[in-house]
Amino acid sequence: MFKKILIANRGEIALRVIRTCKEMGIKTVAVYSAADKDSLHVRFADEAVNIGPAPSNQSYLKIPHLISAAEITNADAIHPGYGFLSENAEFSRVCAEYGIKFIGASPDMIDKMGDKATAKATMKEAGVPTIPGSDGLLDSVEQGIKLSNEMGYPVILKATAGGGGRGMRIVKSDKEFQKAWDDARMESAAAFGNDGLYLEKFVEEPRHVEIQVVGDSTGRACHLSERDCSIQRRHQKLVEETPSPALNQELRDRMGEAAVKAAEAIGYEGAGTVEFLLDKHGDFFFMEMNTRIQVEHPITEEVTDFDLIKEQIKVAAGEPISGKNYYPKLFAMECRINAEDPSHGFRPSPGKITNLHLPGGHGVRVDSHVYAGYSIPPNYDSMIAKLIVSGQSREEVIVRMKRALEEFVIEGIKTTIPFHIKLMEDEGFKSGNFTTKYLETFDFSKL
Amino acid sequence: MFKKILIANRGEIALRVIRTCKEMGIKTVAVYSAADKDSLHVRFADEAVNIGPAPSNQSYLKIPHLISAAEITNADAIHPGYGFLSENAEFSRVCAEYGIKFIGASPDMIDKMGDKATAKATMKEAGVPTIPGSDGLLDSVEQGIKLSNEMGYPVILKATAGGGGRGMRIVKSDKEFQKAWDDARMESAAAFGNDGLYLEKFVEEPRHVEIQVVGDSTGRACHLSERDCSIQRRHQKLVEETPSPALNQELRDRMGEAAVKAAEAIGYEGAGTVEFLLDKHGDFFFMEMNTRIQVEHPITEEVTDFDLIKEQIKVAAGEPISGKNYYPKLFAMECRINAEDPSHGFRPSPGKITNLHLPGGHGVRVDSHVYAGYSIPPNYDSMIAKLIVSGQSREEVIVRMKRALEEFVIEGIKTTIPFHIKLMEDEGFKSGNFTTKYLETFDFSKL
Repeated sequence: MFKKILIANRGEIALRVIRTCKEMGIKTVAVYSAADKDSLHVRFADEAVNIGPAPSNQSYLKIPHLISAAEITNADAIHPGYGFLSENAEFSRVCAEYGIKFIGASPDMIDKMGDKATAKATMKEAGVPTIPGSDGLLDSVEQGIKLSNEMGYPVILKATAGGGGRGMRIVKSDKEFQKAWDDARMESAAAFGNDGLYLEKFVEEPRHVEIQVVGDSTGRACHLSERDCSIQRRHQKLVEETPSPALNQELRDRMGEAAVKAAEAIGYEGAGTVEFLLDKHGDFFFMEMNTRIQVEHPITEEVTDFDLIKEQIKVAAGEPISGKNYYPKLFAMECRINAEDPSHGFRPSPGKITNLHLPGGHGVRVDSHVYAGYSIPPNYDSMIAKLIVSGQSREEVIVRMKRALEEFVIEGIKTTIPFHIKLMEDEGFKSGNFTTKYLETFDFSKL
Repeated sequence: MFKKILIANRGEIALRVIRTCKEMGIKTVAVYSAADKDSLHVRFADEAVNIGPAPSNQSYLKIPHLISAAEITNADAIHPGYGFLSENAEFSRVCAEYGIKFIGASPDMIDKMGDKATAKATMKEAGVPTIPGSDGLLDSVEQGIKLSNEMGYPVILKATAGGGGRGMRIVKSDKEFQKAWDDARMESAAAFGNDGLYLEKFVEEPRHVEIQVVGDSTGRACHLSERDCSIQRRHQKLVEETPSPALNQELRDRMGEAAVKAAEAIGYEGAGTVEFLLDKHGDFFFMEMNTRIQVEHPITEEVTDFDLIKEQIKVAAGEPISGKNYYPKLFAMECRINAEDPSHGFRPSPGKITNLHLPGGHGVRVDSHVYAGYSIPPNYDSMIAKLIVSGQSREEVIVRMKRALEEFVIEGIKTTIPFHIKLMEDEGFKSGNFTTKYLETFDFSKL
């Protein structure tokens, strides 16, 4: 087992990894930018190294600084968390060169799953359902129109290097095609330096349902069932839950099997997530595989009792997994508490937290790095806490979440709590019957 | 179902009851003394009524004030929490007279179980194992010596109205008897206004193992397995855990059956706890039955997924229980965080909390009413938080508890956290092999 792990991240996930390391008796090294010197991950780690100024590209994304920090502290492994360098093949490669175990995917797997067109082709070959579409990149508008007529409209154009909705266009007819093509190419070239586009059948009334998988060095994988992340705003997840209100056991088994097949097809090692779009007919399609821990991993922990960070570390250290699949024994939901003003377009609201009271009690978990007196820096993403609630039914979880949200006091900044409270009271949400587009028509006034 | 519940208590248990009421859609009324006006239970309840000055006998123990508060707010039920009036037959009786449902035991049951000698006789008759001893109160020293010789020394003299160790004397031989008798009578007369004594066989190497029961109005009862509360200092529980390291399934079943028998023998309605002493041979003896919710109830909740306050409320509203018994699916432990200085004889340390950070993450629950800036009044008991941890094994729970304790920051006052950290590192505690006397030889220096 590792003796010392450097956590190449900040915020709640850095604290989350430190917690598990402490429980495993592994020493920890925090890294921090100048903006994060008063952060709890710095306080709770055994050692802490300043890796540069606030901008991420001068600190948390600076590979040589991270490697130096690992070398001078004698860390034998690096946990990248999520975001930042967690899916950066180069970082994974450099770690290996320096004899430091990267607790995540190999450079090869990151490459394979990082490029969407390659990922899709790999999955199709492995027999995982994928969305009908172009075989790799589109060469021309003409080819796109021909294919669209074969599949039937609506279709969607997507940037091969894309993410967060950029470089995407829905196309409903031949005559819209040329403009959508031009717009998507321009946008993806600007955003990603890559204007390659591919085409897909557009899935109507989709839900975002992802499967948590863990693979080990023997090539074996298992799944820990699903997370439903359909509640999104502009492709940003806001609420996640498990089990999904849209799945029965038969569908769960089919999706779980497909995810395990996906992981085993590439010899996946570590914790990963296979994201699917689920349509109203119960058909599901591979979207992408995230080769890292997800923000929403705690809901899976609450319903399976596993510590997923511990599983990641064990697998990275060469321990085999049981090979069994795990199913939800409870219901769980996560609300992302962001320092944003939901009644003003979710605009960021950094600043000092003047007063704080965390909710507690039965079935309530809080993962957060903030405290009363903490100043949220404007440099990073706005998530300041994850409120995770579990219970014996979805109904119990919703009333408990509402109770915990109402008890959550954060003064000095605006947060997404009022939005979440309104969502917990919303009949459409309570029915469980919604798609990824649900928030597009949600009334964010009167929060 | 009740529309509005008045909580005749303060601190964490008042907040705990409010949480469940909110989840059940029941309105709440807080009551508070002048010393508690800034308490969270006042902030989070729907209504709050000032019931008098700080001393308990002028506020939280003042039955007419509580009844008035219930009347003016139109509360249809009262939850008494633990301590204060929770096992006061008179209060239960007055509530009934005013048509307010007392969420607890009937006056008759409180009377039956409140007097230890009566309780023991009732249990013996019902076939629940009791400690061999005098049949009711002792008449004389001579009778005591005769009986002690029949049972064999050591024996113990106990005050019938006693509690908290007062009015108790262990006797090892005939010649010690007279002095022990005189001392115990004097002490119990002074403490309880009642000098009645009874005699018992003294159980050597005892563990305190209690069974959670719930009974309904049909006369049926079930159990939710055990809590081991052997870690005590001067008869005050400091750490509780479930399952007990001393029980196997066969013994759990036997103790569970005995507890259900005890509850059904008296037609017990509501949540209650049957406390047993377990000796090193696996024999167990009825100690007492607590006709209320216990401080340590959350560990049972964590391993069974039940909300015990919800069960109390449902049963009080006339709902039947399932009749099934429930067994631990996980391991859980609670540390009582008191505002006391453990390196100076656990002397109280009231005052203002200047800085606070609660632990969080997987398997960690905090039940607390304090916040940064809160001043702990000197008038009440010193418990300021319950840290409850669950996990897949006792070992996992202990390392997680240590991690959570180390992360728990409370500045401005002294707390029992350093003691708990040392206990989690203690080999004797980790072995699981200890008795109720374990802390008598524990080294409280260097905390």
